[in-house]
Amino acid sequence: MTVDELHRARQEYDALVARGLKLDLTRGKPSPRQLDLANGMLEQPGEHVSAAGVDLRNYGGLEGLPELRAIFADALQVPVDQLLAAGNSSLELMHDAIVFALLGVVPGAERRWADSEITFLCPVPGYDRHFAVCERFGIKMAPVPMTPDGPDMDVVERLVAADPQIKGIWCVPKYSNPDGTVYSDETVHRLATMETAAPDFRIFWDNAYAVHHLTDTETAIADLLALAAEHGHPDRVFVFGSSSKITFAGSGVAFFGSSPANIAWWLSHTSKRSIGPDKLNQLRHVRFLRDADGLRTHMRKLADLIRPKFEVVDKILTAELGGTGLASWTSPAGGYFITLRVPPGCARAVVAKARGAGIALTPAGASHPYGDDPDDRTIRIAPTYPEPPELEAAISGLATCVRLVGAEKQAAG
Amino acid sequence: MTVDELHRARQEYDALVARGLKLDLTRGKPSPRQLDLANGMLEQPGEHVSAAGVDLRNYGGLEGLPELRAIFADALQVPVDQLLAAGNSSLELMHDAIVFALLGVVPGAERRWADSEITFLCPVPGYDRHFAVCERFGIKMAPVPMTPDGPDMDVVERLVAADPQIKGIWCVPKYSNPDGTVYSDETVHRLATMETAAPDFRIFWDNAYAVHHLTDTETAIADLLALAAEHGHPDRVFVFGSSSKITFAGSGVAFFGSSPANIAWWLSHTSKRSIGPDKLNQLRHVRFLRDADGLRTHMRKLADLIRPKFEVVDKILTAELGGTGLASWTSPAGGYFITLRVPPGCARAVVAKARGAGIALTPAGASHPYGDDPDDRTIRIAPTYPEPPELEAAISGLATCVRLVGAEKQAAG
Repeated sequence: MTVDELHRARQEYDALVARGLKLDLTRGKPSPRQLDLANGMLEQPGEHVSAAGVDLRNYGGLEGLPELRAIFADALQVPVDQLLAAGNSSLELMHDAIVFALLGVVPGAERRWADSEITFLCPVPGYDRHFAVCERFGIKMAPVPMTPDGPDMDVVERLVAADPQIKGIWCVPKYSNPDGTVYSDETVHRLATMETAAPDFRIFWDNAYAVHHLTDTETAIADLLALAAEHGHPDRVFVFGSSSKITFAGSGVAFFGSSPANIAWWLSHTSKRSIGPDKLNQLRHVRFLRDADGLRTHMRKLADLIRPKFEVVDKILTAELGGTGLASWTSPAGGYFITLRVPPGCARAVVAKARGAGIALTPAGASHPYGDDPDDRTIRIAPTYPEPPELEAAISGLATCVRLVGAEKQAAG
Repeated sequence: MTVDELHRARQEYDALVARGLKLDLTRGKPSPRQLDLANGMLEQPGEHVSAAGVDLRNYGGLEGLPELRAIFADALQVPVDQLLAAGNSSLELMHDAIVFALLGVVPGAERRWADSEITFLCPVPGYDRHFAVCERFGIKMAPVPMTPDGPDMDVVERLVAADPQIKGIWCVPKYSNPDGTVYSDETVHRLATMETAAPDFRIFWDNAYAVHHLTDTETAIADLLALAAEHGHPDRVFVFGSSSKITFAGSGVAFFGSSPANIAWWLSHTSKRSIGPDKLNQLRHVRFLRDADGLRTHMRKLADLIRPKFEVVDKILTAELGGTGLASWTSPAGGYFITLRVPPGCARAVVAKARGAGIALTPAGASHPYGDDPDDRTIRIAPTYPEPPELEAAISGLATCVRLVGAEKQAAG
């Protein structure tokens, strides 16, 4: 790169700043057009009785509406009677699972997790809100590198076999946040069968994107809950899912699935906390989605809105950064995110430059525990919220920032 | 009482059993007719935008919808910007307040509550679900007798001044569960001003029946949150409320109010747990209730359904037990419950006899910590769910059981 190239990169950036953009790629939010597809949920006057004749306006029904659990059972790979339907957030359920294990005694444990220092394994890059829950409660986090097949299982197996204070691992097994990785059958099998020093080890299986395919291929993963039970570890797996990125982000329904012993333990806690979830909202979901086929049809309509946005990102990054050696990026077949990798030591600078140009990105490092990406090279792009023209402007601007930071780094080095 | 009287009491009971009743007075559940009054909440096709123009279908808005908080601010005696609107259960909020204080550090505390043995004061009779949360987390419970003015403040003041491990007290200040007691201004003033050995002492102010008047008199209580702040204890009070017994029991909205420091602390936890409450359900409440006057009008309609049931209970108990010396009962001006007091040592026997005759009551003792009513004389009657004819049958049957247990006791003694 020549001095001229640095000069040109600066000029391009100045021109970008001068445009006065105000664009937000920070979070995985559905767009208004996606939400519109679920407006049928708002049009069900008077409905308030379940298939079993229960008045859903009243208290009760802690397990959630059976007919809704039936719609999601296959997608989440959990038998209906081991799957609970709860409130509007699966993050809440993950948080509460940790709280209940900290303050109660999870099946297989000898004592409360709160009574000693514990550690969770965190495949990186991963989901910042998982890490934030651990950090809040003082749970130590040990990063594990992701591979194209999921977490590096050699590392996972070594760590969990050695240390009984390692109590859990965060996994987003399908279209992972942020890489879009799909766990291979071998990875799932090794998670199900590995020996753990902790008898109360738990896999937090956040299957957030179970049905969020971008193409007509419905990627399947191995059935961790069944495999673990089959291999003598029935209580190892906590499955989480939600309809937040299916119907309404703020008014979806979250799911918790696990072994019978874990479900009984879960209900023993939640029965002290609540007299039941909002069953009317669960009924709205049943009336709107109808069945597993209805869910599939709805997801295809969503994919038709989302896929072009992923294509825009790929097209612009290819046009503006392809062959420069300054960046690589993922092309996931589903989920909500694209990971952009820039040269080591550049991610924070790129995000800062983008902010200076009115383009808000998830903070660099957010995909790592404690916000610390040791290579400082991972940037998460959330393309779903903006409409394509805004998205084009944002990604093109982001590419301008990458070129400038790259040129500055080369000039300095 | 003669042998003849015992014989007659047994005959009456046998006749009651022979009727094969199946009636349930266990829980404070709204009746279907009460719920029908809120069916307008189910008839708002397409509504999804807030007064500020926010799309409520999406993530966000952790504090809850401002226009809904404004409707409930006066009723709960909390300024709007210190009042949060959350999910469908205030019990959840109380549970979580304890969890956050166990695992975090509440303002004024030196350490987490989980790190030492702590105690809550429990005015008795009280609400079994409060006690169940404490029991679940191993929090010791110290009973405090209720007086007609609220908890016996001489006892409360002595205990909290002496023991820094006493961290909280459960209060249902208006139309208390189960006695229907209204805290006097002096009681509230003493709660606000008393000296506590614990710098992190909290009053759990469960104002569940703030607007649940049975007559046209809108009983008011003193403003604890304001008084505590005025007297140098701004962070002492956690206010809880909900619309569960106003709109739909399972699909209401719960509220948390407190000092600015406590609200910041609360949000620092809940922001790790959730990306916001179900704001569409909050909007439904706004559209349906409209404003504080709309809330008042709705509560009058509910009172017109509930008041006759309380009158039925009083009428039948008077006719069947008046002057027998076997029972006394409360005549509350609001709330959801009537307390029936039977001779010492008789409550469990009465509840068992009633169960034998197909009349389900809240377990005797439930109104005391650990289910232990030392005098075994308190029975909670929840009259709202059955319609008047069933309620008459249930209360008349209950009176038969009281007479039989009384006669048996006298014959044995």
